[in-house]
Amino acid sequence: MKPEELLPFLKEVDRLKTVDRQCVLHNGGRRENSAEHSWHLAIAVLLFHSLSAEKADLLKALKMAILHDIVEIDAGDTFVYAVSSDTNAKELEAIKRLSGLLPAELGKDLQAIWLEFEEGQTPEAKLVKGLDRFLPAYSNILNQGNTWKKHGITLSQVLEKNQKPVETGVPSLWPVFQKMLNDAVSQGHLKNN
Amino acid sequence: MKPEELLPFLKEVDRLKTVDRQCVLHNGGRRENSAEHSWHLAIAVLLFHSLSAEKADLLKALKMAILHDIVEIDAGDTFVYAVSSDTNAKELEAIKRLSGLLPAELGKDLQAIWLEFEEGQTPEAKLVKGLDRFLPAYSNILNQGNTWKKHGITLSQVLEKNQKPVETGVPSLWPVFQKMLNDAVSQGHLKNN
Repeated sequence: MKPEELLPFLKEVDRLKTVDRQCVLHNGGRRENSAEHSWHLAIAVLLFHSLSAEKADLLKALKMAILHDIVEIDAGDTFVYAVSSDTNAKELEAIKRLSGLLPAELGKDLQAIWLEFEEGQTPEAKLVKGLDRFLPAYSNILNQGNTWKKHGITLSQVLEKNQKPVETGVPSLWPVFQKMLNDAVSQGHLKNN
Repeated sequence: MKPEELLPFLKEVDRLKTVDRQCVLHNGGRRENSAEHSWHLAIAVLLFHSLSAEKADLLKALKMAILHDIVEIDAGDTFVYAVSSDTNAKELEAIKRLSGLLPAELGKDLQAIWLEFEEGQTPEAKLVKGLDRFLPAYSNILNQGNTWKKHGITLSQVLEKNQKPVETGVPSLWPVFQKMLNDAVSQGHLKNN
């Protein structure tokens, strides 16, 4: 493999730093972008992988965390409470285009890792998906429900989107998370309905 | 290990998203922060590890990329052309404080990975250090020497800081990189002295 064959992809993914999510930083400041979120998710994987529901391969889980959002370069970020039916089709087009920028074998590997994450069936995908859901909620817990308040999100919506993935991926995190959500309701940072 | 023991570190490292580097995004826009840079470096490791000078363990190299800059939460980012003698002491204090937020064994692992990167002697450290030097230079190559011009950086300074680490970590990247630097000089984006 020649190094110059790797540069178009390296250059293209810089754009993920310009994709803003709904979530803000823990300090309640600016919106988080999908590149720095992916880094934070990789940190979470390093920390929590020993608490994975099923034995997960750390290398594969880290690759997933790093790559899971690159499709947003084309498809944009979708707010977890507003996923539409065509999100997935756009993301599939995006992963094809992006992996096509790489030498064939590497592109195929990347696409397989991303698809495995999307399908959510393997131990690694369950771990990474659980943590991917926990992170923005944790940010809201730490910044007085910034995004929840902005979008009028309720406890039942948070439970519907987060409980199953977190329980499935990192079971021991769920009761801790649940207590934090109940506290957020008591403190008036999350609506109780 | 209890999940609540991992939350203080997960929370603290969010601050890396607020540490700005001198380098700007490829599009020449805002300054890059150290969290999204660490993500981009992890992508670079995924792409270039098969071109590593010495056989490098991919998992260890990815951990290094993800963790290499966390000390900047306390010590700030140091411009590569302005490293001072007390940078290292501050960074050592920082890695002790941050790893102290974690359960003992995990904190010890994290500190060992960071130290191995800093010392730069293992195959993984050489690979990651080479790519860490290449990325901001590549950004300058793509955005008409934005930071080079702002700070009056010259070709000889770029060579002094980058040639050895890139040649040592990813030898086949060096001639490609060298040609791009010479082109940047021809195009007036980098001073030739």
